[in-house]
Amino acid sequence: MKTRFFLRFIAGMLLLSSLPLLSNATESLTSGLAPAITDDQHYNRAIHIMAMLLVGFGFLMVFVRKYGRSALTATFLLVSISLPLYMVISSKGTGINENDIRRLILSEFCAASLLIAAGAVLGRLKMQQYLLLGLLFVPCYMLNEWMVLEGGFGLVGAGSVVDTGGSIVIHAFGAIFGLGVALTMTTKQEFEKTIESDAVSDRYSMLGSMILWVFWPSFCAALVTPEQMPLTVVNVILALCGSTITTYLVSVSLRKKISIADIANAALAGGVAIGSACADATHSEAIIIGVVAGAISTFGFAVIQARQQKLMKIIDTCGVTNLHGIPGLIGGFAALPIVKGLEIKQQLLGMVITVVLAFSLGMIAGKILPLLGRKTEAYEDADEFLDAAE
Amino acid sequence: MKTRFFLRFIAGMLLLSSLPLLSNATESLTSGLAPAITDDQHYNRAIHIMAMLLVGFGFLMVFVRKYGRSALTATFLLVSISLPLYMVISSKGTGINENDIRRLILSEFCAASLLIAAGAVLGRLKMQQYLLLGLLFVPCYMLNEWMVLEGGFGLVGAGSVVDTGGSIVIHAFGAIFGLGVALTMTTKQEFEKTIESDAVSDRYSMLGSMILWVFWPSFCAALVTPEQMPLTVVNVILALCGSTITTYLVSVSLRKKISIADIANAALAGGVAIGSACADATHSEAIIIGVVAGAISTFGFAVIQARQQKLMKIIDTCGVTNLHGIPGLIGGFAALPIVKGLEIKQQLLGMVITVVLAFSLGMIAGKILPLLGRKTEAYEDADEFLDAAE
Amino acid sequence: MKTRFFLRFIAGMLLLSSLPLLSNATESLTSGLAPAITDDQHYNRAIHIMAMLLVGFGFLMVFVRKYGRSALTATFLLVSISLPLYMVISSKGTGINENDIRRLILSEFCAASLLIAAGAVLGRLKMQQYLLLGLLFVPCYMLNEWMVLEGGFGLVGAGSVVDTGGSIVIHAFGAIFGLGVALTMTTKQEFEKTIESDAVSDRYSMLGSMILWVFWPSFCAALVTPEQMPLTVVNVILALCGSTITTYLVSVSLRKKISIADIANAALAGGVAIGSACADATHSEAIIIGVVAGAISTFGFAVIQARQQKLMKIIDTCGVTNLHGIPGLIGGFAALPIVKGLEIKQQLLGMVITVVLAFSLGMIAGKILPLLGRKTEAYEDADEFLDAAE
Repeated sequence: MKTRFFLRFIAGMLLLSSLPLLSNATESLTSGLAPAITDDQHYNRAIHIMAMLLVGFGFLMVFVRKYGRSALTATFLLVSISLPLYMVISSKGTGINENDIRRLILSEFCAASLLIAAGAVLGRLKMQQYLLLGLLFVPCYMLNEWMVLEGGFGLVGAGSVVDTGGSIVIHAFGAIFGLGVALTMTTKQEFEKTIESDAVSDRYSMLGSMILWVFWPSFCAALVTPEQMPLTVVNVILALCGSTITTYLVSVSLRKKISIADIANAALAGGVAIGSACADATHSEAIIIGVVAGAISTFGFAVIQARQQKLMKIIDTCGVTNLHGIPGLIGGFAALPIVKGLEIKQQLLGMVITVVLAFSLGMIAGKILPLLGRKTEAYEDADEFLDAAE
Repeated sequence: MKTRFFLRFIAGMLLLSSLPLLSNATESLTSGLAPAITDDQHYNRAIHIMAMLLVGFGFLMVFVRKYGRSALTATFLLVSISLPLYMVISSKGTGINENDIRRLILSEFCAASLLIAAGAVLGRLKMQQYLLLGLLFVPCYMLNEWMVLEGGFGLVGAGSVVDTGGSIVIHAFGAIFGLGVALTMTTKQEFEKTIESDAVSDRYSMLGSMILWVFWPSFCAALVTPEQMPLTVVNVILALCGSTITTYLVSVSLRKKISIADIANAALAGGVAIGSACADATHSEAIIIGVVAGAISTFGFAVIQARQQKLMKIIDTCGVTNLHGIPGLIGGFAALPIVKGLEIKQQLLGMVITVVLAFSLGMIAGKILPLLGRKTEAYEDADEFLDAAE
Repeated sequence: MKTRFFLRFIAGMLLLSSLPLLSNATESLTSGLAPAITDDQHYNRAIHIMAMLLVGFGFLMVFVRKYGRSALTATFLLVSISLPLYMVISSKGTGINENDIRRLILSEFCAASLLIAAGAVLGRLKMQQYLLLGLLFVPCYMLNEWMVLEGGFGLVGAGSVVDTGGSIVIHAFGAIFGLGVALTMTTKQEFEKTIESDAVSDRYSMLGSMILWVFWPSFCAALVTPEQMPLTVVNVILALCGSTITTYLVSVSLRKKISIADIANAALAGGVAIGSACADATHSEAIIIGVVAGAISTFGFAVIQARQQKLMKIIDTCGVTNLHGIPGLIGGFAALPIVKGLEIKQQLLGMVITVVLAFSLGMIAGKILPLLGRKTEAYEDADEFLDAAE
């Protein structure tokens, strides 16, 4: 009996002792492979987002016929000032020990928001003012990000606001900040000048739009878990399909003919609006969000924009209100019924903070920018570029 | 003796019992890591293919000088209608439980085939007719896919036709369907109108061509196993190199001067023709396929196209017969000597079904499309777009 | 006692015997998953680099107003001749048993260097001479690669020269080779002809520049270990940010107005110069390298280029001296203080060999190329292309 008991004891011990060995093996494997794999997955998305920042936003803004060289140079400068600035501040200020690639993506989000803000005043800043805009914008963006997403000042619980793809803190913040800047950065002369485009600039603009469309899933899925990725990605694509078709239908209905500016811009509204709930919505909800955002955005471009500009006495060059502002807020609201366990008050509070901070900080930035003077010829390369013949 | 036997028994049992533990660990590892990894690999290729669909096909079609806004808008609409439609039908109809990313890739294949079909009648459809074309095309494409690749109706054994990169079911099907549509969608007026291009549209077209070239390996390797990937990828690149150089040589030989349209199009014929056998061919075979396809495609553009159009009394705007039709069929035939264990009858039957279905279904679609009327000015943005000045 | 001893023996044996099983499981997992994962990581970067080769280099060279079709066709041909040639020679000559995807990346590096060399004489070669240039260049490049990186002829120890992203063997070699070719490939007529650009060609050129900027991290990190990847990638981006901002500042300072050619080119100098030390530098060092390279490169374009051309009696069409030559050598020198354990003599010797080989072999190539004649109209599509109207 003793022997038998002992044998059983040994057998049991052996089994038990082999378990940690197994789980160690498992851990050493996942800890050996997994970080490198995750880094690489993040890396590919970071490069996709970089294509959106430079080629996407850059060429979308080339629709201004005589201002293409400036728009592209400004894009280069805005990205090149904001990425290092965000990385430097985030690595020191908050003490968060992010790894490099993850921080790179967060800094790209900031650059995207800055490019949106710049779109509101595109063509009315001197080149050096874009650099100053970048310097002023990055800390403002980070303040909002910290307050809304990380629980800064304790107003909103950290992680309580659901905004996976940045409808609120990237798109709405950038657009509303840009509107704030535009309040002072629109002179009477500029207000009366037509912004011209032509066949060449329209096609460049569509190139930018398509690059944004193509890589948008990587923007929204950049930091989701591998398990959330497939749903997120397909949701983003379905929302974009929905807004693209709706944009065409609404554009023709409202204007009798198609406006290529509607297509290049409002087709992307689905991507903006799916941002908050992209990892939580069902496919059907994603399509609905896209359709609604595309319709409202196109209505904005076709009907509201002219009235808004007269009312606010500003020019919103790229129409960021209608592409990023309104659809971004739609995205924030869309999360309310969709995301399970979402605290509605927190989500709404996060949106209110974003709107208030963006507009007031944008206005302050708009007071500082004119200290560097004003551009001589709005929407034209010629006063700042050599050999800027057409 | 009893004790010893018992000990051996215990020892054996322990070893045996630890095996499933080990293989469980292995499985939990592969099932924990591997699906996420596979999803991510598929995801990156899905995004590459999306760049081909919008920027690649879209800008390749901008070669029509006055029709750039329309070509790009049509591309947007064709992609946005076909992706959700394919996903919805495939998730319900067939009962296949594909995961999201894999289904996304299959729907992109369908969108590629649709864009090819639309290329045949580009410039002669109203914008809303592109949407209708998409609605008609997707079920037809899926019927052929089901019959040729999945054994539908039992004519061809499931998996018997080798067509990894879609020479047959994507390229040839799309091109021949497009020809079927063109039969009714070419009026006498349109037949006599010159399709103009200029320096700007040519360079846009080359942008589309290059984007297609760059990401073609991801198209063909989208769903191959990780082990097949390196061979597949290098084969595709070698085939494209072969067709690119051959296109230049044949274009100069036949025309005395280089035609940029030959370069932008026929350079891609190697990618089309390597599709069927890309995961099976040797590198040498891949180069030969590319050279042959490039030569025949260029000959098609330089010599056959004008005669075909007179004979069939149709216009094939983008020359999809010569870029996707003939090279696609070459690809299907090329698999016969290359792929080991291929059932020749099955492969040929699959090709015959594809040709017959594509042409007859395309003709039917061509009867339905005119119900929405006819475009006023062929190959021009102006009748459908606002401010379409050059 | 015997029984107990035996039990312990069995227990020990079981534990021991289960260890190899465990480590086998571990190995089979890593050897089953890891190579496929590594291949896939390499694959994504290979595609990114392909985008740089065709769309990046190709469109950067479209800045020559009337030579866009030719520049893009030449890019197609240069890539299509060099990739297979490198692969064939490397798989036979050296006996290295590289896998396919790794060899693909090495062949892309060679193609990049060739495109740089061709940039020096762009617009002055007939189309067939680009093919001949490719045939001559690839073996020369491989000779230098073998001598400098792999210890060929025993002059430099294999692996002693640090050049992760190819500042020396890719950028400097290509640029200096191109200068050697330009010595004979600049006629007096060509010397006096102005190279024109316009608003359209400038924006195309910026497209190329942005594509290069976006994917540059994949170029430098293509073959680094997964552990080195994050540092490398962020270093490259920081260097590019540094050179981009500096280029704007120096361009305006030296010229009063901004030159879009400076922006499109010198903004990339940070990427060139970070190449050697990208996996070793700190982030601060990376920014400094970018700033210095951007400043010197812009100074080169604004001040030195005109003098160099008069002095050497050559035209360097794309300014590769200032974008790839000087910044490449700066990159090689920058590694000296940065890389720990670097043998200074070996690094310098590697650079000397590269400069001497590149220039002398380039001169020889420049003697052979004119055997195919000379282009009738420099910098114009019209003499080689059909319907090359603007």
